[in-house]
Amino acid sequence: MAPLTPKLVVPVDLKSKPWQQKVPLHNRWHPQIPAVAEAKTGEVFRVEMVDWTGGAIKEDNSALDVKSIDLSTVHYLSGPIRIVDKDGIPAKPGDLLAVEICNLGPLPGDEWGFTATFDRENGGGFLTDHFPAATKAIWYFEGIYAYSPQIPGVRFPGLTHPGIIGTAPSQELLNIWNERERQLVENGVESFKLCEVLHQRPLASLPTTKGCVLGKIQEGTPEWEKIAREAARTIPGRENGGNCDIKNLSRGSKIYLPVFVEGANLSTGDMHFSQGDGEVSFCGAIEMSGFLDLKCEIIRGGMKEYLTPMGPTPLHVNPIFEIGPVEPRFSEWLVFEGISVDESGRQHYLDATVAYKRAVLNAIDYISKFGYSKEQVYLLLSCCPCEGRISGIVDSPNAVATLAIPTAIFDQDIRPKASKVPVGPRVVRKPDVLKCSYDGNLPTTKNPCSSSNS
Amino acid sequence: MAPLTPKLVVPVDLKSKPWQQKVPLHNRWHPQIPAVAEAKTGEVFRVEMVDWTGGAIKEDNSALDVKSIDLSTVHYLSGPIRIVDKDGIPAKPGDLLAVEICNLGPLPGDEWGFTATFDRENGGGFLTDHFPAATKAIWYFEGIYAYSPQIPGVRFPGLTHPGIIGTAPSQELLNIWNERERQLVENGVESFKLCEVLHQRPLASLPTTKGCVLGKIQEGTPEWEKIAREAARTIPGRENGGNCDIKNLSRGSKIYLPVFVEGANLSTGDMHFSQGDGEVSFCGAIEMSGFLDLKCEIIRGGMKEYLTPMGPTPLHVNPIFEIGPVEPRFSEWLVFEGISVDESGRQHYLDATVAYKRAVLNAIDYISKFGYSKEQVYLLLSCCPCEGRISGIVDSPNAVATLAIPTAIFDQDIRPKASKVPVGPRVVRKPDVLKCSYDGNLPTTKNPCSSSNS
Amino acid sequence: MAPLTPKLVVPVDLKSKPWQQKVPLHNRWHPQIPAVAEAKTGEVFRVEMVDWTGGAIKEDNSALDVKSIDLSTVHYLSGPIRIVDKDGIPAKPGDLLAVEICNLGPLPGDEWGFTATFDRENGGGFLTDHFPAATKAIWYFEGIYAYSPQIPGVRFPGLTHPGIIGTAPSQELLNIWNERERQLVENGVESFKLCEVLHQRPLASLPTTKGCVLGKIQEGTPEWEKIAREAARTIPGRENGGNCDIKNLSRGSKIYLPVFVEGANLSTGDMHFSQGDGEVSFCGAIEMSGFLDLKCEIIRGGMKEYLTPMGPTPLHVNPIFEIGPVEPRFSEWLVFEGISVDESGRQHYLDATVAYKRAVLNAIDYISKFGYSKEQVYLLLSCCPCEGRISGIVDSPNAVATLAIPTAIFDQDIRPKASKVPVGPRVVRKPDVLKCSYDGNLPTTKNPCSSSNS
Amino acid sequence: MAPLTPKLVVPVDLKSKPWQQKVPLHNRWHPQIPAVAEAKTGEVFRVEMVDWTGGAIKEDNSALDVKSIDLSTVHYLSGPIRIVDKDGIPAKPGDLLAVEICNLGPLPGDEWGFTATFDRENGGGFLTDHFPAATKAIWYFEGIYAYSPQIPGVRFPGLTHPGIIGTAPSQELLNIWNERERQLVENGVESFKLCEVLHQRPLASLPTTKGCVLGKIQEGTPEWEKIAREAARTIPGRENGGNCDIKNLSRGSKIYLPVFVEGANLSTGDMHFSQGDGEVSFCGAIEMSGFLDLKCEIIRGGMKEYLTPMGPTPLHVNPIFEIGPVEPRFSEWLVFEGISVDESGRQHYLDATVAYKRAVLNAIDYISKFGYSKEQVYLLLSCCPCEGRISGIVDSPNAVATLAIPTAIFDQDIRPKASKVPVGPRVVRKPDVLKCSYDGNLPTTKNPCSSSNS
Repeated sequence: MAPLTPKLVVPVDLKSKPWQQKVPLHNRWHPQIPAVAEAKTGEVFRVEMVDWTGGAIKEDNSALDVKSIDLSTVHYLSGPIRIVDKDGIPAKPGDLLAVEICNLGPLPGDEWGFTATFDRENGGGFLTDHFPAATKAIWYFEGIYAYSPQIPGVRFPGLTHPGIIGTAPSQELLNIWNERERQLVENGVESFKLCEVLHQRPLASLPTTKGCVLGKIQEGTPEWEKIAREAARTIPGRENGGNCDIKNLSRGSKIYLPVFVEGANLSTGDMHFSQGDGEVSFCGAIEMSGFLDLKCEIIRGGMKEYLTPMGPTPLHVNPIFEIGPVEPRFSEWLVFEGISVDESGRQHYLDATVAYKRAVLNAIDYISKFGYSKEQVYLLLSCCPCEGRISGIVDSPNAVATLAIPTAIFDQDIRPKASKVPVGPRVVRKPDVLKCSYDGNLPTTKNPCSSSNS
Repeated sequence: MAPLTPKLVVPVDLKSKPWQQKVPLHNRWHPQIPAVAEAKTGEVFRVEMVDWTGGAIKEDNSALDVKSIDLSTVHYLSGPIRIVDKDGIPAKPGDLLAVEICNLGPLPGDEWGFTATFDRENGGGFLTDHFPAATKAIWYFEGIYAYSPQIPGVRFPGLTHPGIIGTAPSQELLNIWNERERQLVENGVESFKLCEVLHQRPLASLPTTKGCVLGKIQEGTPEWEKIAREAARTIPGRENGGNCDIKNLSRGSKIYLPVFVEGANLSTGDMHFSQGDGEVSFCGAIEMSGFLDLKCEIIRGGMKEYLTPMGPTPLHVNPIFEIGPVEPRFSEWLVFEGISVDESGRQHYLDATVAYKRAVLNAIDYISKFGYSKEQVYLLLSCCPCEGRISGIVDSPNAVATLAIPTAIFDQDIRPKASKVPVGPRVVRKPDVLKCSYDGNLPTTKNPCSSSNS
Repeated sequence: MAPLTPKLVVPVDLKSKPWQQKVPLHNRWHPQIPAVAEAKTGEVFRVEMVDWTGGAIKEDNSALDVKSIDLSTVHYLSGPIRIVDKDGIPAKPGDLLAVEICNLGPLPGDEWGFTATFDRENGGGFLTDHFPAATKAIWYFEGIYAYSPQIPGVRFPGLTHPGIIGTAPSQELLNIWNERERQLVENGVESFKLCEVLHQRPLASLPTTKGCVLGKIQEGTPEWEKIAREAARTIPGRENGGNCDIKNLSRGSKIYLPVFVEGANLSTGDMHFSQGDGEVSFCGAIEMSGFLDLKCEIIRGGMKEYLTPMGPTPLHVNPIFEIGPVEPRFSEWLVFEGISVDESGRQHYLDATVAYKRAVLNAIDYISKFGYSKEQVYLLLSCCPCEGRISGIVDSPNAVATLAIPTAIFDQDIRPKASKVPVGPRVVRKPDVLKCSYDGNLPTTKNPCSSSNS
Repeated sequence: MAPLTPKLVVPVDLKSKPWQQKVPLHNRWHPQIPAVAEAKTGEVFRVEMVDWTGGAIKEDNSALDVKSIDLSTVHYLSGPIRIVDKDGIPAKPGDLLAVEICNLGPLPGDEWGFTATFDRENGGGFLTDHFPAATKAIWYFEGIYAYSPQIPGVRFPGLTHPGIIGTAPSQELLNIWNERERQLVENGVESFKLCEVLHQRPLASLPTTKGCVLGKIQEGTPEWEKIAREAARTIPGRENGGNCDIKNLSRGSKIYLPVFVEGANLSTGDMHFSQGDGEVSFCGAIEMSGFLDLKCEIIRGGMKEYLTPMGPTPLHVNPIFEIGPVEPRFSEWLVFEGISVDESGRQHYLDATVAYKRAVLNAIDYISKFGYSKEQVYLLLSCCPCEGRISGIVDSPNAVATLAIPTAIFDQDIRPKASKVPVGPRVVRKPDVLKCSYDGNLPTTKNPCSSSNS
């Protein structure tokens, strides 16, 4: 007879600090972070995880914790988990690790989450030049649904997923990451014009010992110092998967991850109750603690068979995903469009990022007409199940990006109407998001044509 | 009793040249192109259209017509159509024009289409630095399905839509377009680094009298000369809608277009039997002639009510869309990911265009393992109902873009398998796409790690 | 090069009577009705068809045509079409004929339909004991959508399908049909208690020369007399397919029909713009003329391979269906339930028909609270895309049947609300359906508990 | 701040017997069974439940427990739960109780279920005349997926739901139930011909003190004796909801239940991991223990506002349901059809039960060609997410019922193919279901045309 219940390989205790967990967590990518657990192919095992900030953001009435967060500590990941086959032989470099997400959800007793945007001096977000201040909204869960006291009139079913799932990089891959990101930090503002448009800082987060947590490796030891100085930060998605933020990666999904080190050393974290494509406010999903039930298969030699590297080395690959069969079913969608002309009216060349920024700005302005503050809509579009599409990427000079919003998440009909135009907000949605002041000196992007400047 | 059949306001005759149609076509945007027809709000009317090249691409066994196409003549549009309300009062600047797509399809007797990619010296495509040669595939329709002799083993239902639908710009808006695009052409290569990555030329297509067709305005007259010199080209989507290439804009969809001139002067063209998000090969949808059945409403003063300008003038707006309730239902999707690291391994900053390019390249390499040439897959991913998503746009420095492909369009299971790895193509899919030589001197982007260089 | 356009094998002329068509129609099933056309496997061919009554019901303001209809003439079918393989060898008895519906729709210039319920003395309907009078509603099409002046406030996309598609029976199968239906007519009222509950008459429609149309066989000839006396009526679905009324049999569907005679002799008719499961009002779909584009394959010996007869002979089989990938996407459904207790309170034993009757009655009463007459709802539930399910069929003594209605077809929110109960119809939906008097003597089923007796 | 976790109002201990639970269970419907818990409108509360047999069926290798089960003890229900509004005022007769299913699932540590069919002498099933012997299959869960060692090659996501949810009847309603079911037992065989066709016994389960469990009311007391003698059995769905077996009643669904007694006295049980429409094998879902998270609203006076009684009293009503937005997404369906001609070839009149029986038999015969025993398919079609539809209910004399099966649940392509007919089972699916002997004397329905008699 089969075991009935997934084996719990990584438990977490929410009453303890993230760096005090019995099975230790980690917040960097490095080949030498030792595995904390092992799982066999074919068996279903459970991984619990803290929220990405490890409890730094509270369920309270203030956004000060968001404003002052220390981002050197994120994301806290559960793992690494060493994967072996039925004969005990570990996954090997060159294999493909197929990870099925059998189930997932919040941790019992902790059924809430938060969506936030950081202060422009401390992380920012996709629209930080428009919205430089830290804000926060708390979400409560009623089973599959989430609602927020700070964004009234909205309720939606979550498409819950882990924001981060990945394998450990080899030393060679790690070196590639560190080198290319260092180059960007050093030369980026000069060489990439997008930097100035997006107004986010820093361009990349390079390795730092500050805030570093490395699982079983004890802080302060020479080994810790060495690894901490070179271990990659967890913010971006990379060749090993990592912070992919693919919102449809929910129950029944399968991820085909390249294996770079023996045992694969799978880590996961950053659970999202729900997220919109792009996760635009950065701390933008409904962030929460939670559990994953996983089942792995090893496809021996699968990297060569299935992944074609694209770049200077055979390590320049990306994972493949199969999305699961269970999704909220929405029938009506309102779609906002953006083209690659920026807020100053300047023409960019086939730039999908600029186009998507415009689409999101258009959506925020539109929905705010229905009684919402722009900050409410910014957070909402970060975490509700909206779809961000690259519609046209060849019609020079304009990329066309679209943002599709399921209208059923609102308690009012938000479609344009010939008869009842919303002359002034019809219902003011109070209270507003929790908000801090922005104390920096950077200029806010002005929209000269908006009645209320965003 | 209601009229049973949509009123045909713009007929086309496929045996005549596009510039010889009884109700004349046009291929530029300009406020002074006179309306050729009128339609009342609430009535369903039919618009027929030629394919976007006006018949330049033939249903034959050669891609030479693709290689030598004169792109100064595209896109041939049907219209402008003046929209008036039930009392005969025309749409006015500041109104919003709600256009419902009641029905659409190929023209009877012309049930075929083509997908192509242009020569790098003559238009190119999203991956023109990898695939510089002109190629072509012919598609035949079996009702809702399309199949191509040049891409065997694939058949899918179309999500048919017009690539272009838009209103006429005012003179002021036209001037804005011409100015910003001229600046890009003049300074783009220096100021935008994407230009060098994408390798497409020209950066924008500025007004030209060459190939210009202006509806009722007779060629060679002073009026024609004046308009032709300033009329905007139709390639990019802009504030008036235009070449949006939104693949879900099918039966039952609604487009809310801003009105800039009296009567709105609605034009449409570029019918697609099917298109993938991004339309990556540029001539990338299944391009065809066809008909649209439309129904309009005027939302008086709707621009101010519903659209918030974002830019230096009140004209910097974008349309809004509602997608229709009838779509092919796919259950399994295979998802490819790209991050904003380019083929040379260089790190870009949150660049969704670079990330999407990588996702598409990954997908092409993967699917080619199942017996296809890369050119076959490139064309296929341009026109099949695949979804291009912006998954993460905030996790510096990597944008994460994904390309999701419905697996049911293939006659084989293309998912990774532990047992049966595709050691060499299992079935070679012959014949290949129709293909020309590339005679230019630009370097092809090499992938040093691909066994067969793309 | 492939032929672009489906070959038209059965044209119809709506200005001619159904018995005067150039390619003659038929309204009976019989092995000796000669084929009127031939189609090869793999080719797409078009079949046009009149509406099931052959034009007897008019687009006018009266239901008198419904009341006085001669049902001996229905359904007018297009065909038989002889199916041969690529070598010209016809389908043979024992084969399976796979018919793909590539496309379908209304005939150009005839874009309207009707839904009706017959007088209880002349055909009736599922609820004829509640609604004995003839009624009619006219529907107009706006592309994929239908709306009716007689049922205001409702608009929905059609899931268009042929009500009838089938192969010709062999003489042996025909004899089985005639014998078993004759026995029912002779002994049914005594032996089946459902008869009294359903109140429909006649129990079955036996062969009759009255109204008989037999394609190429000339009326009045001895051959005609012989065939007309034994040819089966087209009302019920049977082993050959026939009047299946499967509402999801739309674009992209495939029907696997048993072959009983050489050439298969495929016939089709009774096009429905849309239908609800059960087609409860009998003339209950949105009935229309139309066209079908079909493609056939022959599975040699497929009856034995795939169909298991269940009954006294190897002919007691049923077709198999694959439904197509394109359906309207609805997200919210309101579900009404019925159990097998009849209107008098009497308990029936696991009777799904009684349970479904109760579910439909419950739905009619409910929706009529929102401003509709019960006759309006009865017709609406016959033709809108509602789903009729057998939820429980084992929990003695109650069968549980459910009727699920997509709420998006209404222009108001029809869900129960705590705050706004519909005290009296909120909006009276005028005008009503076209309606005749009932002049018969049969008692109407009274609902003693309804405020307004149905 | 909101409470984060649902309040557990009914816990169960799977190590204790169902009649020994701390919060006592009940297995009858009666107005005098006292509430065991209370819940306020607006709050989310959790109800745990044992499987419907209270643990009588084991996770072992024998079906003897199925054969010898004592059905007088089922279903064990959790509740009654008294529902009060925010001011503490209970739901009152005439109100409508809106119950939202926020979440549900198996109990941790008990992630398995069973599907069975009973011996014909002890409960039977829809096809008990074909399959008289007791059988059993065990299912294990991998998150959203279930698989069974006894039905290999099949895996599917569950659409988990409670089979039973209902309010307590009033004494008047209880009397109506008992009277009508008693009449059926006494006269049914004579008055309803379906009884002989369906071969199930008994026709109804009348009240009995045997096996009766009544919550807080102590067994053996005079009160217990009185109630036990008249309390209704839980097998059938009735006016109070009860055993509806609506397979789509999953996360996010809402049930509008009539209130007959003060406090509504809501009870629920019979959790199903997955069920097919009709639940044909009777013990036919994947039966399991589990939990429900519920949220209630009271619509005061809602019965009158929203439900129209149909029958001799105002109590003859049925609940209304809204199905939730999260369902497995299947794209390909194979559909089997049945008409109301029984296995002996006899014609029935518009009998959806007979038609559905034929559809299920057709499906069983078909799928068994792919390597399965008929008993395997019978159990599979009881519990997989297949849809049972009433397609045509008006085309005298044949009702047409259909059974649609999602093809993705199989690990092989089960669609008919021209090239590869399954000549003999291609893969024999071993082992088989667990099976007992049938020791009774009732004749099995023979299918004279099946090669292997079913």
